[in-house]
Amino acid sequence: MIHNSTIDAQLNHRSIRAFKDQTLTKEQLTTLYDAARHTSSSRFLQQFSILHLTDEKKRAAVREISGQPYVGANGDLFIFIADLFRNQQLRHDLGQDDGTLHTTDEFAQAVEDTVLAVQNTVVAAESMGLGAVILGSVKNDPAKLIQALGLPKMTFPVLGVQFGVPDQKPQLKPRLPIADMAFENDYPKGFKAADLKDYDDVVTTYYDLRDANRRIDSFTKQVSGAKLAATDHRRDQMGQAIHDQGLALDMK
Amino acid sequence: MIHNSTIDAQLNHRSIRAFKDQTLTKEQLTTLYDAARHTSSSRFLQQFSILHLTDEKKRAAVREISGQPYVGANGDLFIFIADLFRNQQLRHDLGQDDGTLHTTDEFAQAVEDTVLAVQNTVVAAESMGLGAVILGSVKNDPAKLIQALGLPKMTFPVLGVQFGVPDQKPQLKPRLPIADMAFENDYPKGFKAADLKDYDDVVTTYYDLRDANRRIDSFTKQVSGAKLAATDHRRDQMGQAIHDQGLALDMK
Repeated sequence: MIHNSTIDAQLNHRSIRAFKDQTLTKEQLTTLYDAARHTSSSRFLQQFSILHLTDEKKRAAVREISGQPYVGANGDLFIFIADLFRNQQLRHDLGQDDGTLHTTDEFAQAVEDTVLAVQNTVVAAESMGLGAVILGSVKNDPAKLIQALGLPKMTFPVLGVQFGVPDQKPQLKPRLPIADMAFENDYPKGFKAADLKDYDDVVTTYYDLRDANRRIDSFTKQVSGAKLAATDHRRDQMGQAIHDQGLALDMK
Repeated sequence: MIHNSTIDAQLNHRSIRAFKDQTLTKEQLTTLYDAARHTSSSRFLQQFSILHLTDEKKRAAVREISGQPYVGANGDLFIFIADLFRNQQLRHDLGQDDGTLHTTDEFAQAVEDTVLAVQNTVVAAESMGLGAVILGSVKNDPAKLIQALGLPKMTFPVLGVQFGVPDQKPQLKPRLPIADMAFENDYPKGFKAADLKDYDDVVTTYYDLRDANRRIDSFTKQVSGAKLAATDHRRDQMGQAIHDQGLALDMK
């Protein structure tokens, strides 16, 4: 294994959900933005934006949608947005039509730009000793989030991130072994729960150490349990919310 | 601006498209996989996989699809895959149905897992002195790529990445100013090309220095030009290809 400060931080990554009662300095904020905007973007079209929420009403709205008390609490809350609006506006201003902006392909590229920038920003934050948690939960009610943030059509909020000074030291969560997620030339024919027995044991021990009073689930138990079971929730409206924003209209 | 070795590398990121004629060592490969699998994943479901292509036939097939001669040439070629197949198989093995695996929401989460891991792997590679280029072009013909790689339903190739020892030193590409991509509380009402005049000048100078013989385009010229103009190509089949893999079936 090769070691340097960047890689060691990556291998020690923990999502931080408890932050001290302080906000980012102006210098930290600028550095995070600078890391974000230097991320690779598809065909140099730079189709993402970042919204920094300091307004207490907006933070509370996002917290309520996410259902997680630490969202928009201590630390700084950001929403990373797939942004086809900026380029649409520039095209209109220069007398052009919308071109490919409403296609699934273009939306996918904007989402890719956005998510690459999320990870680059998380890495930058952790290198400064800050903590971060990536928030998929902000999309628990996509239409409501779009409304709460006042986002125009041709934008879509992809992920939230809460950054701040860590106020907890969680254990490192054990990940799938390389043999089960990286393959040479040929993707496997199938997967059996029994093949993941050793990993399941490691995950069970992790939960046991973390909190012996809570239910302890192995990885395959989590996969086969409630997390992926069909339920009725507003996240099911994701596809409609994307279409309502004018995006991926050729996907039907 | 805050500086450390991680951030300095991020701010100096260049996509590398020319590599020396050598492949990754086993240790480099393992380190990259380890960085990838320690990336945050949505709800700990770890819904991505990596395919490392050393087989010359497969590399050539991807190169042909991408239309770029450096793809699968010098260096190492990887395809990062949104993977709902592994968890589907585990659920079946444990007597469960497919649950939410066919929804847009679940596919979006798998894509997010995948793209976060791409960026983390790129950062790890660059910290070791390797170069990388993220390849959206592998999806120029999504159905053909899926067939060439022998990917089962419930998987989708999201991005390729070519890693290797850099054999070029490109200039740093100037990115959108912070004021045009990061906003506090309120997303802007609109964008005008004139507001990007200074940035357009910087981009034009960059191209002029890079290659005075090639056409020089400002940022707004690129946005209003051919890149986003409607054309007829196989990338338009992205939505159908996603559906054909059994994914995002509720998006219609």
